[in-house]
Amino acid sequence: MVGTGPGDAADLSPRALQALQEARVIVGYKTYIQLLAPLLTPEKEVISTGMTGEVDRCRQAIDRARAGNSVALVSSGDPGVYGMAGLALELLEQEGLLETLAVEIIPGITSATAAAARLGAPLMHDFVVISLSDLLTPWDLIEKRLALAAAGDFVIVLYNPASHKRTGQLARAREIMLQHKRPDTPAGIVRNAYRAEESVTVTNLEHLLECPVDMLSIVIIGNRETRRAGRFLVTPRGYRL
Amino acid sequence: MVGTGPGDAADLSPRALQALQEARVIVGYKTYIQLLAPLLTPEKEVISTGMTGEVDRCRQAIDRARAGNSVALVSSGDPGVYGMAGLALELLEQEGLLETLAVEIIPGITSATAAAARLGAPLMHDFVVISLSDLLTPWDLIEKRLALAAAGDFVIVLYNPASHKRTGQLARAREIMLQHKRPDTPAGIVRNAYRAEESVTVTNLEHLLECPVDMLSIVIIGNRETRRAGRFLVTPRGYRL
Repeated sequence: MVGTGPGDAADLSPRALQALQEARVIVGYKTYIQLLAPLLTPEKEVISTGMTGEVDRCRQAIDRARAGNSVALVSSGDPGVYGMAGLALELLEQEGLLETLAVEIIPGITSATAAAARLGAPLMHDFVVISLSDLLTPWDLIEKRLALAAAGDFVIVLYNPASHKRTGQLARAREIMLQHKRPDTPAGIVRNAYRAEESVTVTNLEHLLECPVDMLSIVIIGNRETRRAGRFLVTPRGYRL
Repeated sequence: MVGTGPGDAADLSPRALQALQEARVIVGYKTYIQLLAPLLTPEKEVISTGMTGEVDRCRQAIDRARAGNSVALVSSGDPGVYGMAGLALELLEQEGLLETLAVEIIPGITSATAAAARLGAPLMHDFVVISLSDLLTPWDLIEKRLALAAAGDFVIVLYNPASHKRTGQLARAREIMLQHKRPDTPAGIVRNAYRAEESVTVTNLEHLLECPVDMLSIVIIGNRETRRAGRFLVTPRGYRL
């Protein structure tokens, strides 16, 4: 299970690169497989599936591994953060293969910190990571977590803030955060961090909905001390300067 | 500001490597500078300082940059997660250099996901990152955040769980988490992830204090669905299998 980071080869760790080079079979979501095109030499078997094909993709990877192939199951970012690592471990256990196959999880630069780097340093203090996708998680639980995170003055990182079908969640999340965070709390939106179509927007909680977001966006909302410094966002850690 | 990941060259991104190769001056905390020894060619100036010298280290980096040098200010893991990026941006602003110097934050594999990869896939669902160091943060606020995170059934990642001088914080954190999480909630401790002296321990909240922790350890406590799968920890995301 290989984390490929944001997508550019400059952000792919040598450990991940080696795993991709050594694998006979590479399995992953279409969009991310395309970012790896230079590595996909003709002798490799490539299995790519669409966005909601996670279980199918994992089962195909396991089938190829059971047949004796070295398989790289690819996640963009880090495979352990809303990626494929957990599902793969669960299916390997179900198939009784967890102890017989050599399994390794190779970390990658996760979207939260890639996006943060483009915004400056918004994650310098305690933060939460929450996905706004309610495909697999009851929306009530997501709302509860948003409220608690805002009450604790955490910096909040939102994964999956919207999709084609889901457009109201970010508005509701903003309402909940506004019960604890000031409207002028700085916020940032990074779409396609470190990819060709990258866009970086610095805004605040009040104006958050004026900026377009989608599945390729990460939204970060500061804590009460987060502020702008030039073009950057900074959350002070508390050093005396 | 360069994130070098866990420490092994295999986890250093090509973007970070290039920055280190191009820099005339490399500034960082002693222990992490030692991990970079193979890159420290004789023509480079190396400035390393002790653990609590963050402000001094940053000022030295800025002085060298102001004098016209390309400077790499090194953080292990990701520079934006309890690293040097925020402090550096604050000091650059204070010195009026934020718009005149070319500033770049280069992300790295952060300790939370490096440790998680060694444990399996504990971060597959919403999680919080909290530092137990009260050097810069009032302990009351840390306790409040722990309680809210536990009440929200977040997976909890603890940075700086203990140091030579601080030994009681993890015990208190465990008490707080036990008000919301079951004693058999799986937990993991990873010390020196991906370094020579790595150790990985899988335990649970009840037995958490029986395992030694220090500044080089990351502690991860699961949510109510986290479970063991073979030697791994897995937090299911909710797929039907």
